[in-house]
Amino acid sequence: MTVQDARTPADSQVSGDIKPGWHKGYITGSRPDLEVPVRRVHLTNGKAVTLYDTSGPYTDPDVTTDVRRGLAPLRENWIITRDDTEQYAGRELRPEDDGIKHTSPRGGNLRNLDAVFPGRPRQPRRGRDGAAVTQLAYARRGEITAEMEYVAIRENVAPEFVRDEIAAGRAVLPANVNHPEIEPMIIGKNFLVKVNANIGNSAVTSSIEEEVEKMTWATRWGADTVMDLSTGRNIHTTREWVLRNSPVPIGTVPLYQALEKVDGRAEDLSWEIYKDTVIEQAEQGVDYMTVHAGVLLRYVPLTARRKTGIVSRGGSIMAAWCLAHHRESFLYEHFEELCDILATYDVTFSLGDGLRPGSIADANDEAQFAELRTLGELNRIAKSRGVQTMIEGPGHVPMHKIKENVDLQQEICEEAPFYTLGPLATDIAPAYDHITSGIGAAMIAWWGTAMLCYVTPKEHLGLPDRDDVKTGVITYKIAAHAADLAKGHPGAQDWDDALSDARFEFRWEDQFNLALDPDTAREYHDETLPAEPAKTAHFCSMCGPKFCSMKISRSITEQFGGDADATPEEIEAGMLEKSKEFAASGNRVYLPLAD
Amino acid sequence: MTVQDARTPADSQVSGDIKPGWHKGYITGSRPDLEVPVRRVHLTNGKAVTLYDTSGPYTDPDVTTDVRRGLAPLRENWIITRDDTEQYAGRELRPEDDGIKHTSPRGGNLRNLDAVFPGRPRQPRRGRDGAAVTQLAYARRGEITAEMEYVAIRENVAPEFVRDEIAAGRAVLPANVNHPEIEPMIIGKNFLVKVNANIGNSAVTSSIEEEVEKMTWATRWGADTVMDLSTGRNIHTTREWVLRNSPVPIGTVPLYQALEKVDGRAEDLSWEIYKDTVIEQAEQGVDYMTVHAGVLLRYVPLTARRKTGIVSRGGSIMAAWCLAHHRESFLYEHFEELCDILATYDVTFSLGDGLRPGSIADANDEAQFAELRTLGELNRIAKSRGVQTMIEGPGHVPMHKIKENVDLQQEICEEAPFYTLGPLATDIAPAYDHITSGIGAAMIAWWGTAMLCYVTPKEHLGLPDRDDVKTGVITYKIAAHAADLAKGHPGAQDWDDALSDARFEFRWEDQFNLALDPDTAREYHDETLPAEPAKTAHFCSMCGPKFCSMKISRSITEQFGGDADATPEEIEAGMLEKSKEFAASGNRVYLPLAD
Repeated sequence: MTVQDARTPADSQVSGDIKPGWHKGYITGSRPDLEVPVRRVHLTNGKAVTLYDTSGPYTDPDVTTDVRRGLAPLRENWIITRDDTEQYAGRELRPEDDGIKHTSPRGGNLRNLDAVFPGRPRQPRRGRDGAAVTQLAYARRGEITAEMEYVAIRENVAPEFVRDEIAAGRAVLPANVNHPEIEPMIIGKNFLVKVNANIGNSAVTSSIEEEVEKMTWATRWGADTVMDLSTGRNIHTTREWVLRNSPVPIGTVPLYQALEKVDGRAEDLSWEIYKDTVIEQAEQGVDYMTVHAGVLLRYVPLTARRKTGIVSRGGSIMAAWCLAHHRESFLYEHFEELCDILATYDVTFSLGDGLRPGSIADANDEAQFAELRTLGELNRIAKSRGVQTMIEGPGHVPMHKIKENVDLQQEICEEAPFYTLGPLATDIAPAYDHITSGIGAAMIAWWGTAMLCYVTPKEHLGLPDRDDVKTGVITYKIAAHAADLAKGHPGAQDWDDALSDARFEFRWEDQFNLALDPDTAREYHDETLPAEPAKTAHFCSMCGPKFCSMKISRSITEQFGGDADATPEEIEAGMLEKSKEFAASGNRVYLPLAD
Repeated sequence: MTVQDARTPADSQVSGDIKPGWHKGYITGSRPDLEVPVRRVHLTNGKAVTLYDTSGPYTDPDVTTDVRRGLAPLRENWIITRDDTEQYAGRELRPEDDGIKHTSPRGGNLRNLDAVFPGRPRQPRRGRDGAAVTQLAYARRGEITAEMEYVAIRENVAPEFVRDEIAAGRAVLPANVNHPEIEPMIIGKNFLVKVNANIGNSAVTSSIEEEVEKMTWATRWGADTVMDLSTGRNIHTTREWVLRNSPVPIGTVPLYQALEKVDGRAEDLSWEIYKDTVIEQAEQGVDYMTVHAGVLLRYVPLTARRKTGIVSRGGSIMAAWCLAHHRESFLYEHFEELCDILATYDVTFSLGDGLRPGSIADANDEAQFAELRTLGELNRIAKSRGVQTMIEGPGHVPMHKIKENVDLQQEICEEAPFYTLGPLATDIAPAYDHITSGIGAAMIAWWGTAMLCYVTPKEHLGLPDRDDVKTGVITYKIAAHAADLAKGHPGAQDWDDALSDARFEFRWEDQFNLALDPDTAREYHDETLPAEPAKTAHFCSMCGPKFCSMKISRSITEQFGGDADATPEEIEAGMLEKSKEFAASGNRVYLPLAD
């Protein structure tokens, strides 16, 4: 098979698609190979606003990207220099890794990944002698890794703070040693709230090309991590494409692939098949894995009288297995062994909430909180074995029950990062569940959730397309930023202030470029006032040129806001004088542009 | 001018546009002319769900509507029977009512409304001898009006409760005696949270036809009231069309029209021009009016050092007037006289927050709260003169400062209904401000706001079109309903439960029909699985036919959920037995539909 024969994703539409007002910048750390990307928005008033940037090298005009070669392995030298990992032959690839049955005539067609990514070393890496090569282990030893310094610059905090938060288990820095391409990022309540976007082909539809494109598209709009939830064929190959081209950590649910390997029969799953799948994915470079080890046999009956039972796919797979065998979950029983595997690659746990509520009626029930207590137990075990850990949360929760979720999770899980799906604040709006969940997401993040898993408009109805991914990411960036503001995160309000200044000063182009989505903002403006002069006009379509509240208001600011030391009383005293001036100038507080 | 010559809106696209699963129903009260509309959703399992219905006679297939005749005057007989109003000649219509200058050659073209609405009595009605004919006055006298009984049925509460809430000033029932067409509704924190949609032509664009169509369209999706914020020409005529065809209360900002009458020069406004405009609109039937009487001269300097000054149009008009004359606001100085006018028509006050914050930076500042204290003072005056009153609120507020807004308002304004615009929880997402504000709206409504003024995706950018109106209304219905749930409003969760039941039981058509927006839900589903059989399939596109968590979960429910008296322990004890049965039946917890 030649490179040309390999199934390649369409050229990414991300490269070069850089907004006119957005410029790629870098902040260099203590070493030349530590360059942290930022988005600089150059304003028409000569100033610039620096924003967090998740879009990767794709938005750097000086970098040439090639999906067939993948991104440059930014962290490779850091990992090698630490000198605590070894390369090894790795697990042999098998047809069933791509969902191809042993008996299938297509069995021999598993793609040769060496051919797909020529020149890419295929030998995976792991901790030497089974050592925990995790950021948690380093932090506990007091070390500040290059990754920690990177995120410290990214978050504008001290590297020591990053180290201490990781050491305490209050934050995770997902960074598999086999995923050197990522730009390190951190998830924890004392950092900026993060957003995850799910992608993944399914048994029903979608292709590898679409998934890679969705990944770059999602990060383009601000996704901090991406989960590949593929369930159909080509799981392994899709994941390889996604990993090699992703500037953000990639998460998976290994159980999904394990289920494919047993042809969808949950009862045929075993610890051996699961473990093999985890190693397969860890060798590829998956940065965090959702593990539904908290679904215990005795919790299953607690879901029997729920309105919507078990809605987590992973949760129901494990419940089905437990029921079929009347045995305790193999994930729970082999949890320590699993920890030791993850530690040698620095795969971060995302302990799944398999019993999360799937409806308002089931929120905060016994099944949900019983599992949470088990997750607390597992979190302690994982941490004790050096594995970075975060905890997944609901789901569907009415507003008045949201805070209890995060408060309990923080207490039971010793402040481990909470990673929640929404929650949806009502069930009545399919097709708008990005909004029903965006409401819950903003609130739960304010109260302490560290990362929000996005929900798209297609939730409950179908598979998200490109537009849905964008809508989901933008909605969740809103929720995350609203939470940053509410938490009083240092510097968070600078962005709002810059945009509001632009708005007040009628700098339309700046207002567009500072928006989360400049394209749509510009498009909406132009629908009403398409002409180019309207971009500099001191009015907008709401009031028209004749009377504009902002204009009057600016006039007040100019007249009374100048003397920063004046008291309100002094300003008031000056008003009579100004009033006379107005009368003399014809009683016009502003000069209309048009009549 | 003949009827045919009159400028008529396009035939409403609302009539007959009834969703397949939605059926108009009525609940009859103590008298045959008291029939309260409901939306009944007939489910495929033979049950039906009854929902609040704002769509008016347009969705009743047995009613023929004609925009040139307007809706039937439902309340006319109730008003006449009370025998406390008089008809009178009314104010003479003038060219400037439609924004036509005296000196304009078009001055003679004011439309003859008698011709536009033939057979419609044009004589307005008012309280006899200046009496307060308000629902507040009746409630205080212990009377339960037909309107109160109507809303009691609509809200499923006792009529006495409605009366007492109105008497206490905790709720308003906006119902001008000159707007007999409306289906009465109530606004108060102890009732369902309501949503207002703004429409209105502006100086830049849009037509009468569009505005009437937007009104019916907005109520079709759930708007409880509509504000006509027209600012361009044809203000009077547009409003007449909207009022005569509206099944919901109509609100306005009379200051906007008054400003048109003085050619956009704020300083030329006077109490006389304003008063004349209020009477003009009250005679037409406007149900509530935003009055920015809390913008006092001494508060204007408080806005000088704000990031975005005064963003309320009404607020900046009054600030400009106060500055130009260096006099106290004529609205404040003539407030008691204004109360007495409103009382004779039963126009409800919506005391405007002219100094609301226009950015995150300005939230909860001195200017905002100074005005709120004045609104508290005005609220007491209005109530003492029998005028129903609600209070408008912000604006742009970060999440952690939202609760203070509603708590302070409730304290200062003696629990008068709070009516807020969002608030927007961040400034960074123009083009998505329905979402930034939907987050704040849901929260503030949970904490006690009675009505939410919608924000569309076009906010800050342009004028909303039909799609934007729908998106804004749906987003705000989500926020309102999420708040109803969080407040534990009796029966609110029934809707969520019905939809979640349908979801769990794979009743796709029921899921669509129970959705706030069945059309879009169905469309999204069909994008992935268009075939008709997929509507009854026991799987969806997320997991595909092979493995479905809902299906496994249903199987658990069927096996363990049946015996309602069984304890979890008893259920668990039965599990081993079931496990053996599974093994005997081939270890399949469900039978796949396809392989």
